[in-house]
Amino acid sequence: MTELQKMGAAAQKAAAVLRTAGEKKRTALNAAAAALRARQAEILAANEEDLKAAKENGMSEAMLDRLALTPARIEGMAKGVEDVSVQRDPVGRILSGETNPKGLKVEKITVPMGVIGIIYEARPNVTSDAAALCLMAGSAVILRGGKEAFRSNNAIAEVLRDAIESADLPRDSVQLVQDTSRASSVELMGMTEYLDLLIPRGGAGLIRAVVENAKVPVIETGVGNCHVYVDKDADIEMAANIIFNAKTSRPSVCNAIETILVHKDIAEAALPVISNKLKEKNVELRGDKRTCELLPEAKPATEADWATEYLDYILAVRVVDSLDAAIAHIAQYSTGHSECIVTENLRAAERFTAQVDAAAVYVNASTRFTDGGELGLGAEIGISTQKLHARGPMGLNELVSYKFIIRGDGQIR
Amino acid sequence: MTELQKMGAAAQKAAAVLRTAGEKKRTALNAAAAALRARQAEILAANEEDLKAAKENGMSEAMLDRLALTPARIEGMAKGVEDVSVQRDPVGRILSGETNPKGLKVEKITVPMGVIGIIYEARPNVTSDAAALCLMAGSAVILRGGKEAFRSNNAIAEVLRDAIESADLPRDSVQLVQDTSRASSVELMGMTEYLDLLIPRGGAGLIRAVVENAKVPVIETGVGNCHVYVDKDADIEMAANIIFNAKTSRPSVCNAIETILVHKDIAEAALPVISNKLKEKNVELRGDKRTCELLPEAKPATEADWATEYLDYILAVRVVDSLDAAIAHIAQYSTGHSECIVTENLRAAERFTAQVDAAAVYVNASTRFTDGGELGLGAEIGISTQKLHARGPMGLNELVSYKFIIRGDGQIR
Repeated sequence: MTELQKMGAAAQKAAAVLRTAGEKKRTALNAAAAALRARQAEILAANEEDLKAAKENGMSEAMLDRLALTPARIEGMAKGVEDVSVQRDPVGRILSGETNPKGLKVEKITVPMGVIGIIYEARPNVTSDAAALCLMAGSAVILRGGKEAFRSNNAIAEVLRDAIESADLPRDSVQLVQDTSRASSVELMGMTEYLDLLIPRGGAGLIRAVVENAKVPVIETGVGNCHVYVDKDADIEMAANIIFNAKTSRPSVCNAIETILVHKDIAEAALPVISNKLKEKNVELRGDKRTCELLPEAKPATEADWATEYLDYILAVRVVDSLDAAIAHIAQYSTGHSECIVTENLRAAERFTAQVDAAAVYVNASTRFTDGGELGLGAEIGISTQKLHARGPMGLNELVSYKFIIRGDGQIR
Repeated sequence: MTELQKMGAAAQKAAAVLRTAGEKKRTALNAAAAALRARQAEILAANEEDLKAAKENGMSEAMLDRLALTPARIEGMAKGVEDVSVQRDPVGRILSGETNPKGLKVEKITVPMGVIGIIYEARPNVTSDAAALCLMAGSAVILRGGKEAFRSNNAIAEVLRDAIESADLPRDSVQLVQDTSRASSVELMGMTEYLDLLIPRGGAGLIRAVVENAKVPVIETGVGNCHVYVDKDADIEMAANIIFNAKTSRPSVCNAIETILVHKDIAEAALPVISNKLKEKNVELRGDKRTCELLPEAKPATEADWATEYLDYILAVRVVDSLDAAIAHIAQYSTGHSECIVTENLRAAERFTAQVDAAAVYVNASTRFTDGGELGLGAEIGISTQKLHARGPMGLNELVSYKFIIRGDGQIR
């Protein structure tokens, strides 16, 4: 058995206990939150070492910021764990039930996934976030974090494991892969014997690698090439505000927009208002020919711009002839994350919401609301952009499976 | 573009129309059922050619029977299509909704998957069954049937395509892959650009190949190493009847049982009764040491027997020391399909249903009820043995995805 297979077997053992752990899960999470606070110094020291090594290896400032932990960030992690602990237990919900014509009592009830793998990159807070969600969902988790954050992740994982054990649940409910080479990641993706689900959290490159290589069922998360379409019947002020918010409130996240599409009949009136608003944050505009004619400040866009998730203060702009052209553009370039129409026209709104194929489709609101907390699902493990199982934010209720329980008194078929 | 990519693009075009096709789907299905009846001769002639070629290639009698169509089987196909057409439309169901604190109206609504691929083996009836379910679920389908049934499948697909077109829906809502080489199957498994979901229907070898090779999200279906556990507090007559039914009513299907586990305290009384009942159908028993001591007619079982899906009149038998031992045996060898306990003891029933991790867990009823029709889900496209998305029978409601529609009046975050 390889090291990872041993971890898989240990996770399965833990999962068998977690399946019926009930309230002990909350006790463990509360202990974990307390331990994160109490052992803050230990975690910060490990993080210091990670940061030192990263600086020596020439890591960029933006990446260093993602990696860095502070007392406030550790407090945020502890609060995150507590937020999960007060949610309703997602396991054991009876989804439906009936007595069939033969007198069988058929019940469909939520059950844990079993063992979940998470492959993630530089942010160490994912360690506690993902572990808390998986534990509350009754599953054991195998975490495979990035090399750069290994010491931080390991310190956090040990704190969590101690806390879980103190609550009389198996220590191996949470395990961190110790080998951070590419090989361990590839091996994990193939462990169909041990893993019920694999969730990649990170950039487009990581997600693609997992989708290409995994044999274990995967939830594809997080890549967002999102659009706002400004319809001919839009309220221009509202459009400018929504675009400004969706682009600039946090450009680095997946629910930020990357391209706006503007109906030709409103372009002349709307584009200058939108552009002026975006100047407050120095957003670079890259426009098609008609946009550049109306906005001298815009640079010419290339084909590649329509397909790019900038995650930066850059916005592509295209003038379209019709609602249909906007829908067609979105069908071609969207990653199926979040799409918005700004319009006062009911028929346009209905057509857009019916025909645009994305996890979240908005009428007159910012795409930034695609978030578990905002949509009422609680803390999330990611935003799914695939259609199998969960779509959009994946909270606790999306981290479980179900089974049928059928009770009879001797029925045969 | 390859031929398959062209089919993928055509399927996506068709899917965009099907997404909002509403009642036209029923019209198309009724036309399809009528056309299957009206053009029976054409289908039978194509099937005759398939059968002739198969005989020349030395196909087994059992396989020839699977391949063969008759007027009655075609009538069954037409009825199957009609059964789907009268079901409730699975698209557009509002699963939940709320107005959030910011006044956003958040709605979670079912939507079609988009494009579904089905890879299947010798039975030509899968062509119409799968096409009807996918169409009613609002998705375009690319069918990749077995080489041996190609002429039959093609004749059926053409009948369906004509009928769909006559109902003013895109002909390419249903397409059959014309190249039945292994290469087409492998290419299909990698078409993440075009396919939203891939469902293999067939034997364990096919399913394994798809799970190993697919990059497209897959639903693993149908392999059933199912057990009945006879608890120490079982009603012996009931146990014998359930075992007889679950083993012999249709041994070749996935919800038939392959192994029984008998508590040691009841083995001496129960095993002869069970064995006598099974003699009515000449079921071969393969037992562990304790079973063979109690039943001279049993042959000794080897380790391989516990892991084998016989799909035949053979049953493995093991005497276990406890309920825990039975649960552990099932955890080790079960494929997660259907598992049963026979007991009069409430606590044993509750522990078994809570701890056994399978799509369907039974108390005092035959595992043969794991079927979409029997469990109230309607016609099914397969029985999922994975935990992602759908588990157990997959009917129309499991063949759709969902999206969030969020309506606001200018909200920003």
